[in-house]
Amino acid sequence: MMADYEILKTINSPKDVKDLSFMGLKELCDEMRSAILNRVSRIGGHVGPNLGVIELTVALHYVFNSPVDKLVWDVSHQSYPHKMLTGRAIGFYDESRFGEITGYTAPQESEHDIFTVGHTSTSVSLAAGLAKARDFKGEKHNVIAIIGDGSLSGGEAFEGLDNVGDFKSNFIVIVNDNEMSIAENHGGLYGNLAKLRETKGQASDNYFKALGFDYRYVEDGNDVVKLITELMKVKDVDHPVVVHIHTLKGHGYHPAEKNKEAFHWSLPFDVDSGKVLPFEAKESYGAVVADYLEKRVQKDPQLAVVNAGTPGAVCMQGFRDKHPDNFFDVGIAEEHLVAFISGMAKSGLKPVGLFYGGFIQRTYDQLSQDLCLNKSPAVIVVESCGITAMDVTHLSIFDIAMTSNIPNLVGLAPSCKSETVRMLDWAFAQKDFPVIIRTPADVPNVLTYEPKENIELNKFEMVKKGSKVALLGLGNFLKLAEETAELLKEKGVDATIINPRFTTGLDEKMLSSLPAEHEIIVTLEDGVLSGGFGEKVSAFYGDKPVKVYNFGADKEFTDRVPVAELLKRNDLTPEQIVRKIM
Amino acid sequence: MMADYEILKTINSPKDVKDLSFMGLKELCDEMRSAILNRVSRIGGHVGPNLGVIELTVALHYVFNSPVDKLVWDVSHQSYPHKMLTGRAIGFYDESRFGEITGYTAPQESEHDIFTVGHTSTSVSLAAGLAKARDFKGEKHNVIAIIGDGSLSGGEAFEGLDNVGDFKSNFIVIVNDNEMSIAENHGGLYGNLAKLRETKGQASDNYFKALGFDYRYVEDGNDVVKLITELMKVKDVDHPVVVHIHTLKGHGYHPAEKNKEAFHWSLPFDVDSGKVLPFEAKESYGAVVADYLEKRVQKDPQLAVVNAGTPGAVCMQGFRDKHPDNFFDVGIAEEHLVAFISGMAKSGLKPVGLFYGGFIQRTYDQLSQDLCLNKSPAVIVVESCGITAMDVTHLSIFDIAMTSNIPNLVGLAPSCKSETVRMLDWAFAQKDFPVIIRTPADVPNVLTYEPKENIELNKFEMVKKGSKVALLGLGNFLKLAEETAELLKEKGVDATIINPRFTTGLDEKMLSSLPAEHEIIVTLEDGVLSGGFGEKVSAFYGDKPVKVYNFGADKEFTDRVPVAELLKRNDLTPEQIVRKIM
Repeated sequence: MMADYEILKTINSPKDVKDLSFMGLKELCDEMRSAILNRVSRIGGHVGPNLGVIELTVALHYVFNSPVDKLVWDVSHQSYPHKMLTGRAIGFYDESRFGEITGYTAPQESEHDIFTVGHTSTSVSLAAGLAKARDFKGEKHNVIAIIGDGSLSGGEAFEGLDNVGDFKSNFIVIVNDNEMSIAENHGGLYGNLAKLRETKGQASDNYFKALGFDYRYVEDGNDVVKLITELMKVKDVDHPVVVHIHTLKGHGYHPAEKNKEAFHWSLPFDVDSGKVLPFEAKESYGAVVADYLEKRVQKDPQLAVVNAGTPGAVCMQGFRDKHPDNFFDVGIAEEHLVAFISGMAKSGLKPVGLFYGGFIQRTYDQLSQDLCLNKSPAVIVVESCGITAMDVTHLSIFDIAMTSNIPNLVGLAPSCKSETVRMLDWAFAQKDFPVIIRTPADVPNVLTYEPKENIELNKFEMVKKGSKVALLGLGNFLKLAEETAELLKEKGVDATIINPRFTTGLDEKMLSSLPAEHEIIVTLEDGVLSGGFGEKVSAFYGDKPVKVYNFGADKEFTDRVPVAELLKRNDLTPEQIVRKIM
Repeated sequence: MMADYEILKTINSPKDVKDLSFMGLKELCDEMRSAILNRVSRIGGHVGPNLGVIELTVALHYVFNSPVDKLVWDVSHQSYPHKMLTGRAIGFYDESRFGEITGYTAPQESEHDIFTVGHTSTSVSLAAGLAKARDFKGEKHNVIAIIGDGSLSGGEAFEGLDNVGDFKSNFIVIVNDNEMSIAENHGGLYGNLAKLRETKGQASDNYFKALGFDYRYVEDGNDVVKLITELMKVKDVDHPVVVHIHTLKGHGYHPAEKNKEAFHWSLPFDVDSGKVLPFEAKESYGAVVADYLEKRVQKDPQLAVVNAGTPGAVCMQGFRDKHPDNFFDVGIAEEHLVAFISGMAKSGLKPVGLFYGGFIQRTYDQLSQDLCLNKSPAVIVVESCGITAMDVTHLSIFDIAMTSNIPNLVGLAPSCKSETVRMLDWAFAQKDFPVIIRTPADVPNVLTYEPKENIELNKFEMVKKGSKVALLGLGNFLKLAEETAELLKEKGVDATIINPRFTTGLDEKMLSSLPAEHEIIVTLEDGVLSGGFGEKVSAFYGDKPVKVYNFGADKEFTDRVPVAELLKRNDLTPEQIVRKIM
């Protein structure tokens, strides 16, 4: 590894890239590669996607004139090289400055970042708006969307391409084809990309041409000089063109080239060996679900486990490799996933769709129309939910508010490991409803009063009967209810603890019985308050003589804020809760 | 018009179709055409889509063996002929039985209808689930998705095709290409379909082949015998195939052939002249918005009005024809629309996206990520919202619950015409937030206490100050608040009337001041209660000494239930509200 970053340190803006010789550009690429490895090996991050586009990014900034020309990065987890060339290199080569740079494009960081982006398949549509606005205002500049092959399977990307294919002015789509999604690619389109690669762009039935684009193929996607030559040819083009560029994910770092899936995103690792550094492996709900499905498939050879391009994030790599006939990775195509499992369930199967956190957001209409309107009894598990220190694009606190207001859907929130298993059992056994289970991002709780009652539709569980104050701790926050009760005990209050279990329906019988012996009802939920569980409880008690306090997350986008700080900000520590009650 | 329906009356199931001679099939088609016209000319409905697929439907039921073979109709507004051949013809030729048949596929009507469908672009994904389940269970039958060209622009359709392109077993996609969406088609893909039509399927860069499908083209899509011949060739095929069939929208009925957009869906009309029967034209919010935009474009030549394939439903045909440079129909591609206007707004334009009711549901993730996370100050108008007698697939009561829990989004609900204009003015003038305005399906209210205060973020308007009872009538239900207040007056209560205006934020100052002179707070909203406006008010008052009652719609899918009945069922008449308060 080089450690001096001689050239990189001189790059304060894209202008400085343009002053380099071709030899200098190549050296710059090497230094950038070192800087990326310097950062991701120490604090983790997206490895392969960024190593693969170093040369492409240098060429883009050499040829085009950002921020006048507009670069829109899809997903933007591959924007590290772009950040390095736009005044933010220090966030990569200087460990003390890592924290200043986010992992995605962020307009507050630089005028070269136009959008905050973290979900896939959005770049073409966002850039289309920039292009139309440019034409409206009579401006002349290039609009460039950079999208990876993995993102092309998302419906929004298709909708964007289809619309742009009709445009009559400058629009450049860079397809960064590294033959990979996060995991391997799935879908007929990837056969088309493969044929185009094999034929150096000459294959018939070209997907992009079918949508109205001009098309160019570049085989040497990690050769900065060749890339510059090719990009020069489309600069200032007067119509929509796709430049299909073949790159190598993880280029220049052998372990990442060799094991592309593992190095898509990695925890800190040893650069020489490529081995992830020792870390304290924590139990996770993902592992609980994976273990459950492994046992279930032994009994049910027709078990269909469906995921949209993120098998690693939902702990399913082992299951996938062991049971390829029972695992369906539909690629990044969340809408399709929901309709697909609805169709399976209609045919009598019991499919389960696995989502990672906020990506369930991509399926509201499919949940409503394809699944719930049809009452298809499929199971969905949304993993890693709740208040986290995630990037602003990857929050997963909105799922209860989004899903709990759709008719026919039954939502469950497990509070610990054993309950997760019982809820899965219940969901698979029943045939009347689509069921959605949200598991926490947190490690599984160890509870003093572990729930054990059988699951029954919209029946809450009374885990400890007390009086005066009733604490309803939903899912992950049953633990917080216990902690709060502990603190209340010190104040002489023997609080009731209730495990609501359901996010989508109230136990009206139990709730009606509470005012007799309780003056205060407290709801605790590990998600946004607005539109969520607590407000439903408040509404239920609107005309009853009890006080109701809802605790949960404010309606806001938070960005990499530590969990402890978020909990405090939202009055979610036992001390704060007790103070508000008292 | 034939009026005896001699053959049609003998068709009780698809089996009866198979017994007919080719001549008999042609006569059957003629009778079906008469029956469709008989129904839609009297009670309105989808005209062109159904007339265009009569021959195709007869051929499908002749060749395939429903319900063993599975037919999945996209959107299903073209399923009238299918209904006629599956035991429901009487609902078309006998006026007294019209009410028994819905306008979309409905499993409760027939075992030949597999899904309840009304939104576009879902058929391939739903059918994909059926096909995988079939393979899992070792069954052998055909799975056929029938999708119109207009639906192909939706992202979900692409995701489905992309996934199915990889399948290794029977899957038949019938592309019913009538060269039209609801309005004219938009998008690069339609250029591809046009080339395929021109070359009788021989054009290079075939979209379907690019996604991995085998492909066949049928020019004579309204010739039942030719269709049978062609469909026989793909029956029991062992891989995914697209049969691209060229049909004529409105086939066999001259006025519908000539004016395809007007006859996509029509009010009752005179069959001979093709003229819509005289009806009482009512004022609509759609016309208010259209009028506003017409005035606005005079002053702002950079006004961009964007819609996803439904210009007629949002009263924009006049605007589109008059201002083609300011109107963007992106085709049925709602997700793209939201990202597209976000991009425009980022560039300093003030675009407005127009949605028809429940179709806003297709854009949750784009609202959250592409628009609100980026705080792009675009304007969205969702028209025809609230409690209606619509088909179950076309309800628009869920929008407040869906949109009001997304950070940064400002939601407004106008209560009358003049307020609609002031809200639009405010939305266009401000530069800080994306704004979503929901206009009612109802005719504009004439109010006793017409709101006139300037719009100010999250500031409610006190339209009439009283005491004891405060009625918060959101949007369309401000009128209901007035009516309830009138009734309360008779009981000796001088109620306060408040116009909340905002769906996304509470006026905490005003709400805090109410308990001093009020004992009861009542919220009224023209949408689902769960996750909506009222619950937020209940939560606000959780620990305050007032009673709060939320009135709105239950969380349920209702199907063509008359509005009066729905209002009554939900306690939404002034009498019921007063009874509950007293």
